[in-house]
Amino acid sequence: MLEPIIWEKDNLKLLDQRVLPHKKEYMVCKTVNDVAFAIKEMVVRGAPAIGVSAAFGVVLGLKEGKSINEIYELLKNTRPTAVNLIWALDKMKGAYEYCDGDINYIEKVAIKLFERDIEYNRMIGKNGVTVLNDGDNILTHCNAGALATAGYGTALGVFKAAKEAGLNIHVYVDETRPYLQGARLTAFELMEEDIPCTLICDNMPGFLMSQKKIDKIIVGADRIAKNGDTANKIGTYQLAVLAYYHDIPFYIAAPLSTFDFTIEDGSQIKIEMRNGDEIRKIKDIFISPKNVPVYNPAFDVTPSHLITGYITEFGVFSSVNELLNKINEGGENGN
Amino acid sequence: MLEPIIWEKDNLKLLDQRVLPHKKEYMVCKTVNDVAFAIKEMVVRGAPAIGVSAAFGVVLGLKEGKSINEIYELLKNTRPTAVNLIWALDKMKGAYEYCDGDINYIEKVAIKLFERDIEYNRMIGKNGVTVLNDGDNILTHCNAGALATAGYGTALGVFKAAKEAGLNIHVYVDETRPYLQGARLTAFELMEEDIPCTLICDNMPGFLMSQKKIDKIIVGADRIAKNGDTANKIGTYQLAVLAYYHDIPFYIAAPLSTFDFTIEDGSQIKIEMRNGDEIRKIKDIFISPKNVPVYNPAFDVTPSHLITGYITEFGVFSSVNELLNKINEGGENGN
Repeated sequence: MLEPIIWEKDNLKLLDQRVLPHKKEYMVCKTVNDVAFAIKEMVVRGAPAIGVSAAFGVVLGLKEGKSINEIYELLKNTRPTAVNLIWALDKMKGAYEYCDGDINYIEKVAIKLFERDIEYNRMIGKNGVTVLNDGDNILTHCNAGALATAGYGTALGVFKAAKEAGLNIHVYVDETRPYLQGARLTAFELMEEDIPCTLICDNMPGFLMSQKKIDKIIVGADRIAKNGDTANKIGTYQLAVLAYYHDIPFYIAAPLSTFDFTIEDGSQIKIEMRNGDEIRKIKDIFISPKNVPVYNPAFDVTPSHLITGYITEFGVFSSVNELLNKINEGGENGN
Repeated sequence: MLEPIIWEKDNLKLLDQRVLPHKKEYMVCKTVNDVAFAIKEMVVRGAPAIGVSAAFGVVLGLKEGKSINEIYELLKNTRPTAVNLIWALDKMKGAYEYCDGDINYIEKVAIKLFERDIEYNRMIGKNGVTVLNDGDNILTHCNAGALATAGYGTALGVFKAAKEAGLNIHVYVDETRPYLQGARLTAFELMEEDIPCTLICDNMPGFLMSQKKIDKIIVGADRIAKNGDTANKIGTYQLAVLAYYHDIPFYIAAPLSTFDFTIEDGSQIKIEMRNGDEIRKIKDIFISPKNVPVYNPAFDVTPSHLITGYITEFGVFSSVNELLNKINEGGENGN
């Protein structure tokens, strides 16, 4: 099983996703600055994984004697789109205030966040299986797997749970330019798990859909607004439009921590713009004229009406309102 | 001005598109086998450029003393989708039979095909300007430029004509995975011509459309069926669906030689499948697990109802029937 995040009390080991799938190397973070660097430079990526790493970053920072506010600001400014980052930092700050800076208590809170993320992913996986049929061909985009979370994964967690439940499924993997999370991470992770998959380029899903070769689409999320609008890796929006045109169900798999009830809709989600060289170059080799202007948004926003359902640890819901009703019914779960 | 194809009587010089934009190198073809290799290995690519190169290949083969049938079969089997290849070979075979093997005559026919391609591209360009407005942001896919033709280009010819007509336009360029014709060739060609452009990945057009940043889409074609269904570079189909969803005009720019009146619709167009390593590797570097299964169609088919208009040397037409009526009205043009 893949272990992307390993906590060793005095340091945080992060599987370096910049060099996967060819090398399995860990970056050892000894300070909160190391963790901030790892998030910013995408040693670790994926909204839940960023959140959990930041939580351990808080513990490291406090052990260094830094103030909670300094740590909070440093980590908050690493990546702007993933809500799980703020969510985890708020949890940790709350714990700090609650226990009056007791470092052992704070460390336990971080470990709990880590363990819960995996637990919730397994619940997401089980719930997701209910929307699948034996023999399904499913498309996914980017990496919403063990490598994007504390472990197991959200969208990929659904595929793992399907396999555990004995369903035969096959996954089409968008390579996901420019950072190639699909080619480098998702293809690697599915092959490690013996889940049949086929790698395609980001301009091929429409053609596959027109040939009825895709039964469902399941992707992760970086932030979900109160009305269900969902920020996820660039390219998600056009997949949702293509799915709508071809009458293919389109699902978001994400834990409650990815829902941001403080924003009404997707227009309030800030989209991170990244360096143009991510597009101009692959592995230090220029694949375009060196000075060509580039547009490089890391995410886009898919409006809720294009989303068939949200696969969460509480079940599968056709809207955020349905999810909220269910939570209110069952009482809070500590989130 | 870019000269992708240069005829020198005893050899054919082809600008090697495998090493652009970083090196401007010509491959010198001395035999018809050299030309077949150049087409197959994509030293030269783009439907009209393949046709013209094949025509000169016929001349080289005849000079070597090979039979016309042997030459025809050799060249026909290099790439299966571009109709211009068969069209040019049929023209050359017809000329051979007409002149009883007079090599000077046959060479003149090949030169005429070459010159006419440029002439028709200029007419396509002028006609295309009529659908543009000053300030338009236009999206294009792959390379339908000087580098895909004898010179000037079809879709890129429209952009060049727009500039010559004094219109300010800006072009978004899809990088066009896996072969990166957009990043390597179109971006290069537009920058050479001082036409403002921005390079994007193939998963970004939908997001741009949702922000109303794209006014029109213009692409080339590899084969157009009698009912208007159009084979073009993989990814074209999903752009057309996205344009339809966002109410954005979607144009095909192509000469009459790209229309195949022998096939009723797109279902009869054979789609070339290419080697999976084109996706797994970039410039000999693996960007995915080495043994991951891959699906790599070179083209897709866009149904005619998603196409706003066909920009041809005869004018802009909303259907192939309209185009045929115009041709019948005006008499044949020798095609």
